[in-house]
Amino acid sequence: MKSWIAGADSVETDFTIHNIPLGLFSRGSHDERPCPGTRLGDTVVDLSILAASGLLDKLVSAPTREALTTGADSLAPVADLPVLDRRQLRLALQSVFSQDKIPDGFPQNALVDVNAVQMLLPFRIGDYTDFCISVEHMKNAGRQVAGDARIPPQMPYMPIGYHGRASSVIVSGTPFKRPWGLYKLAPSDPEPVCAPTARLDYEVEMAFYVSSNTKLGRRLNSRESEEAIFGVVLMNDWSARDIQSYEMMPLGPFQGKNFATTVSPWVISPDALKPFEIPLPERLVPELAYLQDERVNRALDINLSVEVQTGNESQVIAGNINAKDFYWSMPQLLVHQTMSGCNVSTGDLIATGTCSGTTPNTLGSIVEVTEGGRKPWQLPSGKERTFIEDGDTVIMRGRCSKDGIHLGFGECSGLVLSADPI
Amino acid sequence: MKSWIAGADSVETDFTIHNIPLGLFSRGSHDERPCPGTRLGDTVVDLSILAASGLLDKLVSAPTREALTTGADSLAPVADLPVLDRRQLRLALQSVFSQDKIPDGFPQNALVDVNAVQMLLPFRIGDYTDFCISVEHMKNAGRQVAGDARIPPQMPYMPIGYHGRASSVIVSGTPFKRPWGLYKLAPSDPEPVCAPTARLDYEVEMAFYVSSNTKLGRRLNSRESEEAIFGVVLMNDWSARDIQSYEMMPLGPFQGKNFATTVSPWVISPDALKPFEIPLPERLVPELAYLQDERVNRALDINLSVEVQTGNESQVIAGNINAKDFYWSMPQLLVHQTMSGCNVSTGDLIATGTCSGTTPNTLGSIVEVTEGGRKPWQLPSGKERTFIEDGDTVIMRGRCSKDGIHLGFGECSGLVLSADPI
Repeated sequence: MKSWIAGADSVETDFTIHNIPLGLFSRGSHDERPCPGTRLGDTVVDLSILAASGLLDKLVSAPTREALTTGADSLAPVADLPVLDRRQLRLALQSVFSQDKIPDGFPQNALVDVNAVQMLLPFRIGDYTDFCISVEHMKNAGRQVAGDARIPPQMPYMPIGYHGRASSVIVSGTPFKRPWGLYKLAPSDPEPVCAPTARLDYEVEMAFYVSSNTKLGRRLNSRESEEAIFGVVLMNDWSARDIQSYEMMPLGPFQGKNFATTVSPWVISPDALKPFEIPLPERLVPELAYLQDERVNRALDINLSVEVQTGNESQVIAGNINAKDFYWSMPQLLVHQTMSGCNVSTGDLIATGTCSGTTPNTLGSIVEVTEGGRKPWQLPSGKERTFIEDGDTVIMRGRCSKDGIHLGFGECSGLVLSADPI
Repeated sequence: MKSWIAGADSVETDFTIHNIPLGLFSRGSHDERPCPGTRLGDTVVDLSILAASGLLDKLVSAPTREALTTGADSLAPVADLPVLDRRQLRLALQSVFSQDKIPDGFPQNALVDVNAVQMLLPFRIGDYTDFCISVEHMKNAGRQVAGDARIPPQMPYMPIGYHGRASSVIVSGTPFKRPWGLYKLAPSDPEPVCAPTARLDYEVEMAFYVSSNTKLGRRLNSRESEEAIFGVVLMNDWSARDIQSYEMMPLGPFQGKNFATTVSPWVISPDALKPFEIPLPERLVPELAYLQDERVNRALDINLSVEVQTGNESQVIAGNINAKDFYWSMPQLLVHQTMSGCNVSTGDLIATGTCSGTTPNTLGSIVEVTEGGRKPWQLPSGKERTFIEDGDTVIMRGRCSKDGIHLGFGECSGLVLSADPI
C-alpha cells in the first residue's frame, strides 16, 4: 500500500500509510480553533476540512463526520465514537490516501506542512496513572536503592502503579524549568536542602489514552478494556532522583515527578500496532483469573530510543529498548485500574513506567545507565556526563517494522530550562 | 448578628449567619441546570435568582453577579473571581440575610427547602492531592505497620503527600460498592487472593478547593497560596486496608483508595474560619524558609466527629478529633504543592490526610481505633464490630464555636453497598 502524499512512502518517515495516527493541531493564528488531524510523511491533514468536503460521506458514519467537524478543543468527540466507527475512520483515511493520485474533489487546503502547525495535547487529561511493568527496570531500581535485584513481591501478580499529576502532562516541544525540591546533599546529612534538583533524569515509557466513560463501580473486562484503548504515545516521565528518593517512602513519588511529563503528540491506534503484536514475556507465576484472556496476551514489538542533544552535539544513550519486555499488556492495565471500581474517563492517560532491558543499550533512564550516577556516559567530544543539565533536549523515538512495512511514533522531545532563582 | 431566615440562629444548625458557605445544587428536575447556592438553617438560597433580582447590584461587583448567573455547571466562575470579590460576596450575603426582616423585593423563589434539592460536586476536579500531616496519625500508622511510633524522617521538614484519584471523588450521600482488590489472607500466604476488601475503613480528613490557574513552573508564595484557597470541606478518604498494605510499597496507595473519596457539599470560606484560627502546633525542627510566613502559621480549631450508622443503631466512634493537631496549615500545603513548579487549576482538591490525636475519642480511622482490627468497638446493643460492613453509613461532622458564635460543615456521609459478584 502506497500513498499519493509526497514522502509518505519514505523509509525515513514514521508516518506511512500503515500508520494514520490522530492528533490535535493548531495553525497558530490566534483566532483559529484546534483541529483534529492525521499525518502522512511531513504533511498534516486537517480532518475537519476533509470531513466537511464530502469525500468521507460514503466511507464513515455520520457521527464520525460530526465528531471531526464539531470544533471541540480536544479529540474527545472522536475518542467517544464506538470502536467500530474509529476503526472505520482509519480504514477510510487509508483508502483516500492510498489511491494512485489525488482523488477528485480533494480539498487542497486540508493539507498543511508539518512545520506550519503547532501540535497540542489531544485531551484535557482527567486522571493520569503511571504503572511500573518492566521487570528489568524494577531489578535495576532495586540494585540502586536496596543493593540487590529483588522485585516487589506483588509484581508478578498484578500491575503496580500510582496516580500521577495530570495537570503537568505537556506535549512534546514544551520546555520546562528544572524543578525545586527537598533532598539531602549526602545521606548522612541530618537536614535536607531546598534547592533545584541536581539529579534530573528521564524515563522512557509508553502510554495510552482511554476512550470510555465508566460509572463508579463499573469494572471493565478484557474485551471492554481492549476496545477502550484509543491509542498509544511515547512518554518521558521526567524524574528528579534526589527529590524522589527523599520523599517517596511511604506514600510514593510526588514532587520528584509532578513538575513535567512529556508525551508525543500523534496518537497511534491499536489497529496500526496490530501487525507488531507478539506474546507477552513468560509468566513468573500463574496469572490470576481477572487478568487472563487470550486477547490481552499481547506485547508490542516496538523499538524505542533516547537521545540527548546538548550544545552542538548529541548522543543516543540507548537505541535498542523494546516495549515487548513489558510484563503486562495495555488492556491488562485497564482491567486492573478499574478492578477496584475506579471509574475512567475519555482522555485519561495510562502509562507503562520505564522500559528497560538487561544490556546498556536497553536501559530507559540515566540512573540505570550510570548505575546511580557513578558511571558517566560520554558525548561524541569525549566530555563526560551523568544527569540531565540545563539546555539539554531529550528526544525519544519509537519505531515498528515487520514484513516490509513500518511506522513510528514521531518525537517525544523536551528542553530543560534553568531553575527559577529562589 | 442574627438572620431573618427561620432556623438560622439555632444552636443546632451548622449554617448560621457566620457561615455563608457556597455549594452547587440542583432542584432535581431533569431539565434544570445546577445552580450556585448558599445555606442558612435548612434553607438553600439560589444565588443565581438572587443575583438576577437586582438585590445584590450595589453590594457586589458586576463580574460577581455574572459569575452567579452564568449557568455554569460548577462553582468555577465564582472561584475564579479575585479574592476581594469573593470576600465581598460573603459580606453582601451576610448583610442581605442579617436584616430584621425580609428585604423589599427579595425573590421568594430563591429560597428552597434543603430537602428539595440535590447537592452536587462543586467542581470538575482536575487533580486531587492527599497529604498526611497529622503527626499522631503517622505515629499510629507506624505502630500498626512497623511496630513502633517512628514518623518518616522527612515529615518535620515538609508536608508529605501523594496524588490521589480525582475521578472517584464523590459528594456526600453518594453510595458506592465495596471494592475488589488483591491482598493476602494471612501474611505467610505465598499468593494473594483477588476478592472484595475485608478491611474497609474510613479516614477523617479536611480538604480545600483551589481557586487559581497557574502556569507550569509558577510557584505560589504564601500570600498567593492563602488567596488561592477557595474554601474548606470535610472528606472521608475511604481505604481498603488489606488492598492498601499489599500494594503500597514502593509506589504508594493506589487501589486501596481509588474506589471512592467522599466530600461534604458545602464549601466553607477561609473568612468564615478566621475566628477559629490559632497558632500551629510547636515545631519539631526549625521550619525551612519556603514554608515560613507569619500569615500561614495558622491552625484551625475545628471539632470533628465520625459516626457509624448500621441497621437501627448508630455509634459515634470518635467525637473529639480536632483539626488544630495538623502539623501544617492549608496555605503551606499549596506552597509545597507548587514548589516543584507543579501547576494547579481552579477546582483542584487538596486534603490533609487523616486527623488523629492521642486519646481513643480522637482517632480518625478504624484501623487506629481497633489497633489494626484486634480490639473491637461496640454498638449500643453490645454487638462487637471492627471494620465497615455492607449497609453501614459513615457520617463525619465538623463544628467551630468561639465567643458565642458557631458554624459547621454539615454532613459528609457515605453508604457502603455490597461488592459486585465476581
